[in-house]
Amino acid sequence: MYFGGDYNPEQWPEEVWDEDVRLMREARVNLVSVGIFAWARLQPDEGEFDFDWLDRLLGKLHDGGIGVDLATATASPPTWLVRRYPDVLPVTETGTVLGPGSRQHYAPTSPDYRRLASELATALGHRYADHPAVVMWHVNNEYACHVRADYSEHAARAFRAWLADRYGGVDALNDAWGTAFWSQHYNDFDEVRPPRASPTTQNPSLMLDWRRFTSDSVLDLYRMERDALRAAGATQPITTNFMGAFPAMDYWAWAAEVDLVSHDGYPDPREPDAHRHAAFAADLMRSLRPDRPWLLMEQAPNAVQWRPNNAAKAPGQMAAWSEQAVARGADAVMYFQWRQSRSGAEKFHSAMLPHSGTRSRTWTEIAALGADLEDREPASPPPGAVAIVFDWENWWALTQPDLPADIDYQAEVFAWYTALHERHVQVSFVRADADLSAFRLVIAPALYLLTADGAASLTRFVDTGGTLVTTAFTDIADEHDRLRPGGYGTQTAAVLGGQPVDFFGVLPQDGLVARASGTEFAVRTMIEEFDLDGGHVLARTADGEPVLIRNEAGTGSSLHLACFTDRAGIDFTLDRALESARVEPVVKDLDPAVEAVATAHGVTLVNQSRRPVDVATGLHSFRLAPFETRHLPK
Amino acid sequence: MYFGGDYNPEQWPEEVWDEDVRLMREARVNLVSVGIFAWARLQPDEGEFDFDWLDRLLGKLHDGGIGVDLATATASPPTWLVRRYPDVLPVTETGTVLGPGSRQHYAPTSPDYRRLASELATALGHRYADHPAVVMWHVNNEYACHVRADYSEHAARAFRAWLADRYGGVDALNDAWGTAFWSQHYNDFDEVRPPRASPTTQNPSLMLDWRRFTSDSVLDLYRMERDALRAAGATQPITTNFMGAFPAMDYWAWAAEVDLVSHDGYPDPREPDAHRHAAFAADLMRSLRPDRPWLLMEQAPNAVQWRPNNAAKAPGQMAAWSEQAVARGADAVMYFQWRQSRSGAEKFHSAMLPHSGTRSRTWTEIAALGADLEDREPASPPPGAVAIVFDWENWWALTQPDLPADIDYQAEVFAWYTALHERHVQVSFVRADADLSAFRLVIAPALYLLTADGAASLTRFVDTGGTLVTTAFTDIADEHDRLRPGGYGTQTAAVLGGQPVDFFGVLPQDGLVARASGTEFAVRTMIEEFDLDGGHVLARTADGEPVLIRNEAGTGSSLHLACFTDRAGIDFTLDRALESARVEPVVKDLDPAVEAVATAHGVTLVNQSRRPVDVATGLHSFRLAPFETRHLPK
Amino acid sequence: MYFGGDYNPEQWPEEVWDEDVRLMREARVNLVSVGIFAWARLQPDEGEFDFDWLDRLLGKLHDGGIGVDLATATASPPTWLVRRYPDVLPVTETGTVLGPGSRQHYAPTSPDYRRLASELATALGHRYADHPAVVMWHVNNEYACHVRADYSEHAARAFRAWLADRYGGVDALNDAWGTAFWSQHYNDFDEVRPPRASPTTQNPSLMLDWRRFTSDSVLDLYRMERDALRAAGATQPITTNFMGAFPAMDYWAWAAEVDLVSHDGYPDPREPDAHRHAAFAADLMRSLRPDRPWLLMEQAPNAVQWRPNNAAKAPGQMAAWSEQAVARGADAVMYFQWRQSRSGAEKFHSAMLPHSGTRSRTWTEIAALGADLEDREPASPPPGAVAIVFDWENWWALTQPDLPADIDYQAEVFAWYTALHERHVQVSFVRADADLSAFRLVIAPALYLLTADGAASLTRFVDTGGTLVTTAFTDIADEHDRLRPGGYGTQTAAVLGGQPVDFFGVLPQDGLVARASGTEFAVRTMIEEFDLDGGHVLARTADGEPVLIRNEAGTGSSLHLACFTDRAGIDFTLDRALESARVEPVVKDLDPAVEAVATAHGVTLVNQSRRPVDVATGLHSFRLAPFETRHLPK
Repeated sequence: MYFGGDYNPEQWPEEVWDEDVRLMREARVNLVSVGIFAWARLQPDEGEFDFDWLDRLLGKLHDGGIGVDLATATASPPTWLVRRYPDVLPVTETGTVLGPGSRQHYAPTSPDYRRLASELATALGHRYADHPAVVMWHVNNEYACHVRADYSEHAARAFRAWLADRYGGVDALNDAWGTAFWSQHYNDFDEVRPPRASPTTQNPSLMLDWRRFTSDSVLDLYRMERDALRAAGATQPITTNFMGAFPAMDYWAWAAEVDLVSHDGYPDPREPDAHRHAAFAADLMRSLRPDRPWLLMEQAPNAVQWRPNNAAKAPGQMAAWSEQAVARGADAVMYFQWRQSRSGAEKFHSAMLPHSGTRSRTWTEIAALGADLEDREPASPPPGAVAIVFDWENWWALTQPDLPADIDYQAEVFAWYTALHERHVQVSFVRADADLSAFRLVIAPALYLLTADGAASLTRFVDTGGTLVTTAFTDIADEHDRLRPGGYGTQTAAVLGGQPVDFFGVLPQDGLVARASGTEFAVRTMIEEFDLDGGHVLARTADGEPVLIRNEAGTGSSLHLACFTDRAGIDFTLDRALESARVEPVVKDLDPAVEAVATAHGVTLVNQSRRPVDVATGLHSFRLAPFETRHLPK
Repeated sequence: MYFGGDYNPEQWPEEVWDEDVRLMREARVNLVSVGIFAWARLQPDEGEFDFDWLDRLLGKLHDGGIGVDLATATASPPTWLVRRYPDVLPVTETGTVLGPGSRQHYAPTSPDYRRLASELATALGHRYADHPAVVMWHVNNEYACHVRADYSEHAARAFRAWLADRYGGVDALNDAWGTAFWSQHYNDFDEVRPPRASPTTQNPSLMLDWRRFTSDSVLDLYRMERDALRAAGATQPITTNFMGAFPAMDYWAWAAEVDLVSHDGYPDPREPDAHRHAAFAADLMRSLRPDRPWLLMEQAPNAVQWRPNNAAKAPGQMAAWSEQAVARGADAVMYFQWRQSRSGAEKFHSAMLPHSGTRSRTWTEIAALGADLEDREPASPPPGAVAIVFDWENWWALTQPDLPADIDYQAEVFAWYTALHERHVQVSFVRADADLSAFRLVIAPALYLLTADGAASLTRFVDTGGTLVTTAFTDIADEHDRLRPGGYGTQTAAVLGGQPVDFFGVLPQDGLVARASGTEFAVRTMIEEFDLDGGHVLARTADGEPVLIRNEAGTGSSLHLACFTDRAGIDFTLDRALESARVEPVVKDLDPAVEAVATAHGVTLVNQSRRPVDVATGLHSFRLAPFETRHLPK
Repeated sequence: MYFGGDYNPEQWPEEVWDEDVRLMREARVNLVSVGIFAWARLQPDEGEFDFDWLDRLLGKLHDGGIGVDLATATASPPTWLVRRYPDVLPVTETGTVLGPGSRQHYAPTSPDYRRLASELATALGHRYADHPAVVMWHVNNEYACHVRADYSEHAARAFRAWLADRYGGVDALNDAWGTAFWSQHYNDFDEVRPPRASPTTQNPSLMLDWRRFTSDSVLDLYRMERDALRAAGATQPITTNFMGAFPAMDYWAWAAEVDLVSHDGYPDPREPDAHRHAAFAADLMRSLRPDRPWLLMEQAPNAVQWRPNNAAKAPGQMAAWSEQAVARGADAVMYFQWRQSRSGAEKFHSAMLPHSGTRSRTWTEIAALGADLEDREPASPPPGAVAIVFDWENWWALTQPDLPADIDYQAEVFAWYTALHERHVQVSFVRADADLSAFRLVIAPALYLLTADGAASLTRFVDTGGTLVTTAFTDIADEHDRLRPGGYGTQTAAVLGGQPVDFFGVLPQDGLVARASGTEFAVRTMIEEFDLDGGHVLARTADGEPVLIRNEAGTGSSLHLACFTDRAGIDFTLDRALESARVEPVVKDLDPAVEAVATAHGVTLVNQSRRPVDVATGLHSFRLAPFETRHLPK
């Protein structure tokens, strides 16, 4: 189990480093991420490198028994680089150049940025590939967190090349994007532009490819640095830190390229569902690479500084969230950052070692958790019987502005996750085209963009006995965001027992309600005009429109919500789905405030509330204090 | 009566065209607008035209007995055009270039755009002037809908030329704009710039001329294409589609240049007053050219896709809104669009032929309405006895930010229209300087900018027996938005029985109320310090300030509200005004949910609500189902 | 006592000028500010001056006995200047050039603007230094009101020079700004850029210096014009008009450079606390130069036109606000503007002589006040025993986005001022490093940035018997916005009896409350984790966290609020502080709606409400009508 955090020694005089090592040992720190923003210090100007200070630092850490996750330091280009090559700067949709003075001021496709980043990674690789302190490499930092897309001329050129590669010829592109609409035909790839400011909505197929390109072009940067490290002889695992369900990057694609999945998580302690958001992110990280543990690379020791008003973590809450991550497969609990900065935009971000030193509550809790985790084995949780489909390409397609109704894909997915989390049901995330044979229940909210492979996979899943839950606006568009010929739901009609004919927006003020046996629930956001073909209706509107349809197919079954709904609707559907799939909770009759996670060693319980909770599992009966964790053996 | 819609065959393989013609005939379609976004297809590159496909298409339509409203296809320049002439692109107030990828990405004053648009219109004219299918020409599309003003250098040059033409010399401009204020004197027209981003508010006289120029410069584009068609031999009527009370274009000026007025109307079905907004637009379209029928060129067959959440039209509502347009003078009921697109930003906009085909409710209602309208005569409604002044130049003057209070001119006009609509009183719209002799009551809300001609016309109207209703902020500024010498209300003081001395803002939180005999109503937005001279006060504030003033002048009378007010205040004033003008409703004692329109043939009643309504007209007594229409003969 | 206003004769034909002088005399006007926006009239083109009209005007005014505050006319560059030197235009953070068409369209550091402004000031100085009408000079107008910062290349160059001057070498800058953070090291001053748009938050130390530079660079413009006037022989006092607590300019620095402090005040009559905001501004203006009277250079005779909805001043309210200013040390009551404009963005701003002329309420009240003030002596109020620290550099440091909580510094200071104003306690404003020996109570809200000099001054104040009140987030950062080594509150720990260890945000929804003997009050915005060292706790949260700490030091004492709070918390603290400091109100037991100001001649009472108020001072007992003023002699 790793315990530690980002360490920025370049902000401090060397005489402080010894105290750092001493206090790290006191807190049981065994891994620090070094050099993430040290480019200017490592390379004072083009052609000049200064590694002496880093040599000294790594030596001290190694002597102290502290491992290093060594950064390639490319996340914030030095000012000399910007002065020499001003066109490395990224550009917004409206043409504003984003300048230096903060961080991440580079266009991912800038040739000069790429060359210099590669040179730095290479130099670091050559010098430290064999350093005994270096146990891991950390490429760049939170790719795209501030610059979610770059619209520069570099990006335009790279986008054209990416499209030429994807489509071969421009005719295929015209066909895929439907450019006959609004006279958008391209005679040549050179006519394509990034979706910069325009009079009205851009072509949604272009937008979808633009988002794919943006994710790919940044991933290509990562690969470039990774390969430079390898070429320089590095043999340690290489990672870069993800940010949960981050909209701009398709982490399914990214996960295949990293040796370890790393995650930075910053839930808001003031948000009552914060621990569920954290659990969602943790299960997503685990699902990206289920074959190995992941790293909680960054979390806040206490409050952050970047919200307008930054609440404290309650006593014990930081430990509870850390335990939650460990139970869900993390083998590293790390923080931003080790020592609080005296200057800069993050000087009020809490740190493991606060500006006030060791007399603070923050330090006390950090040191206690470090001791607790010191000899912990990785939890290696099993995947569970339930999978939720979560797909970035679908998410991107659903962000287009011209839909029957605005749909918040992440919120819809989270609503289903929440209902399962409160029922203590273990969940994995999957793409629709994954191998689903390990699961008994698959939930696919708002799966608007459904590829032929994805549809085949879901069909196979039901045919072989699985239970599938879908919602309105499923199986509408192909991978180019084109409506499939022949209507909506053409690939899933047989499985779902019918297909939608039209879609209409619904708002709370419309007061639309679905009635089922013994209950009713809200129709929200959108309702389908649904054409039944074999399905059995479990709930209808007052006007008789079908809202929930059950169907049998092969040896499995499906439940289709022809709308979006509230928690009552999700619960009604989920009761039937879990029963159909014979899924049991990790622990029965447990307070929803307590998290229960099955691990390789037993069950971990974490009280995620500010009140004590009584627990009776049959075998055990005890009271959990606020934010207390307990590990029940098998 | 025309029935049909936009038809974009270039989005579909030719084998679909035959099915289109077959289904059009089934739905009684007799007119389609073709080619609106077909520029790239018609002209694959500069100097190359491809009309063969259009020849084939028009042939098929003609063979099917379907007329064509042929577009000049200039609303969305092809990408080759942008690549060759990047400076055709429009520019925002802050200097952002609006690029291709959507539509309408042209500066109206760009010489290259103008040359190429003219060449295309000419080529189409030459080829199709004598084509038997072509019954009408459709120039461009919804001019300025997305780019309400262009601030490019082309626009700057054209603005200067327009000003030189308007003012002759720069001294006249300095005088008109009051440039002694804030040191804004111009030594030369070349010093004038469009009102781009500036430290604070631009000169309001410049802003007013800028809006005039913007409307004129786009109208000039229209004229250019129209004249090109005529020069190429076209003899059919020529139109372009308006958008109701669209703020950016002065449709009084435009209406004089089109052969037929066309209107695109997209009320929100979720809005309870949607049908009144539609009626307002219909009466405005009729009033623009009262000598002939107008075309409802576009409406949605069902939901649209461009709002954040797009409600369905209730069963029957689409027909009710269509009947409303016909009763108010339309002789065409048309839609966007015939066949729903598979790609692009409008793929979820409903179509006459939905993506799901003929099994949908939308198709059923379309086909039924087509049959209903097949042999309908135009309604040719009379103008009625009441006119409301609606004036774009006044609207523009009222959009300046530096007024005593923000005034929503369109909302004020609509509030009076609503009260009359609910009373089933037929209304026309006029400019103040129109011939008002046909009317007995004229209502002129917030007529801030009142020219000498307008004032003379209103005075003549009252002097010869008419009843005039005015509100606060009337007769303040001249055509240059200069305060008239000698105070406020100088031209209308004799008619109104006094004049305002000052204006003060009022907000709901101020709780200001007017008291009249037996009632009270709200004072909103603004109150005048009003100096009586002969007027008789019908309502006052608690402090005794006059709020409603009645005056006799010549053989007529006036009612002046020295404020803006709520519905109670409008009703109080209107009761007196209608009585004074001896105006009767089309049908007495009728539920406000039912619309009643007098036509050349009798009265059309449309139940615009979701509930049945009992109607008793004296002669007739019956129940109207939700959204039912009934035509009562004379 | 001066009485008058801005006078813009260039907007009117000369025949109007005689009427102006006649009516000015009728209203007892004895000073007018002339030429503020007359640049284009004074200099029709580069190298041409036209002073003849001004000669004639000044002659007429002088003959009428009216003095002139002559403007240098540089606030709105003529359009010829922009055409000749387009790069004088200022630029926004995102690169948008702010063009002409309004006013203040100049980059303060533009060499061409500076040269031409200096030439104009010199020419005016040469011609009018000895003119008998000219009693005062008015440089530019409301510096920076619209362009609060300019990000042009001129600004970038000037910023670098300013930094080089401030820091000597770039190493000192790197150290001061902590550029080791996020790899922001500068190898050279030329690498520094203004804080233009960037991916995320700029370095807060850079931002602080940028705000200092912005204030300094504009002040430098003022000095340039002032020195040009002096060099041309002018001997009259020179001023420029401030705007109360204007965020962008440090008026402590500015006040040292003007001969007279002038203030433009535009409170909103609809705002119940408007007169307290006006009193705050008046006390601030007085405190900036306590050695001499200040000028109320601009106020509105009645409504303004630049809010969305502009309320009237109630009858008497304008006079009450004027009397308030006089009681607080103003010896000039002046207005924008004399005669209402016919054109331009301010044509609906009220004027002393309204567009409707002398029959309006506005004119009547103006003329009455002019007569009242005619023989008034300056009030010369004493400073009082209470000072509030108000510091622009601290304000700027608190505007950085990355704090534990967003803090509205001006609102916090105003909350303390309000509580004192309602208690009729006379207040001065000071910087922390001022000589505080005249005061018995000093209140320093949110004094985050506390220099060593400021800390020494506050310590000396307490040590010598003063009472000091502080709040959360005091004594945190040094003058470079660096956290001071060793923790928070290091300079003030001995005085306050402890120091903060950490800070956490608090929102109303958190419901956090402090309990003290017999009362409770809200904890708002932020709470400190406070480490006591000798202090005595007067209030705690339910969890026992100390919230209000009293401490004795030297012969004085302190009260530290370890949070921000509501009015109840301020009152609880203030009761104890006023008692400790033995501060008495100007008048006891007086209704808070009446303002009481001690002057050199006695006490001025102003009823600032719309209701009559009974007053009993012991000696006197009487009723004050709404907005009535009464002067009680000593």
